[in-house]
Amino acid sequence: MSPLSLPELSTGLQPLSHWQHRGDKLHREYKFPDFITAFGFMTSMALYSQASGHHPEWSNTYNRVTVELTTHDAGGITQKDLDWATKAETLI
Amino acid sequence: MSPLSLPELSTGLQPLSHWQHRGDKLHREYKFPDFITAFGFMTSMALYSQASGHHPEWSNTYNRVTVELTTHDAGGITQKDLDWATKAETLI
Amino acid sequence: MSPLSLPELSTGLQPLSHWQHRGDKLHREYKFPDFITAFGFMTSMALYSQASGHHPEWSNTYNRVTVELTTHDAGGITQKDLDWATKAETLI
Amino acid sequence: MSPLSLPELSTGLQPLSHWQHRGDKLHREYKFPDFITAFGFMTSMALYSQASGHHPEWSNTYNRVTVELTTHDAGGITQKDLDWATKAETLI
Repeated sequence: MSPLSLPELSTGLQPLSHWQHRGDKLHREYKFPDFITAFGFMTSMALYSQASGHHPEWSNTYNRVTVELTTHDAGGITQKDLDWATKAETLI
Repeated sequence: MSPLSLPELSTGLQPLSHWQHRGDKLHREYKFPDFITAFGFMTSMALYSQASGHHPEWSNTYNRVTVELTTHDAGGITQKDLDWATKAETLI
Repeated sequence: MSPLSLPELSTGLQPLSHWQHRGDKLHREYKFPDFITAFGFMTSMALYSQASGHHPEWSNTYNRVTVELTTHDAGGITQKDLDWATKAETLI
Repeated sequence: MSPLSLPELSTGLQPLSHWQHRGDKLHREYKFPDFITAFGFMTSMALYSQASGHHPEWSNTYNRVTVELTTHDAGGITQKDLDWATKAETLI
């Protein structure tokens, strides 16, 4: 899998309006009502991550979850990162 | 905490239309889109359960979650069970 | 994937001494110190399940987790069930 | 709840040899065998956090979990942070 070109990335991010392109990563911060909903989301996406073999760099403080996505093996952002972000949007 | 009377239970169940009174337990079956959403729900309610000190009897098979609620210490259904069911409804 | 023969199953269960063969399912009951450890185990095995595409029928009440494994597509117990049980044993 | 004095903190950290005092936070990095065990640990500690009303700042990348603990209401490290760290050590 090779990194997306800038035009490919730009097109891929169009439906992902809350995600930002920062360097070689996709970035989003979530704010949930509380820790219960934040960690439920993380667990669902943990399941997706393990099944797809693609794991995020993420952090959590109470109701906030910050996610950074990149594909280390490819040295940049790939379709796997867009897929992760797209799945995450279906859960909130 | 003492068990709810039948009139109290009947009133408490009015906004919980998917929950049934079966013997000395409250019962509901959930069907989620998939395992990811089913287990995310379970994790959120696990957090609620641990924080409230009130844990369900529940089972899961793929996208299905079956919950039974009772308050063993009280020997029946109490407000704690209604509170659990009410919280669960906010998450789906 | 086809169901294991009885000799294959007997051999496969030898290192899984806490698992029982009941009808067309593998069965085990776990008793953990508390809910925190029980649900942590369930979450780890939920991740394994989603990644392997093979999900248990399981129930939980506080520190107890009961698991039944079968492979519906094959109409019986297969290597997937032995693999699940083997993975679970590494986590406790 | 008031922040621990340096002598109190020093004493409290003696059995927590993997935890470091950094500024007004306790810090530890965990390395687990894989994501399954890392996220199982996080779920168990999420349950503890919600029940104790004390949540970490933590991040995860695959098998690594980094935790920072502080008590914002108290403006520093308190017994709650030592309790969290102590509980976490029992799970690994």
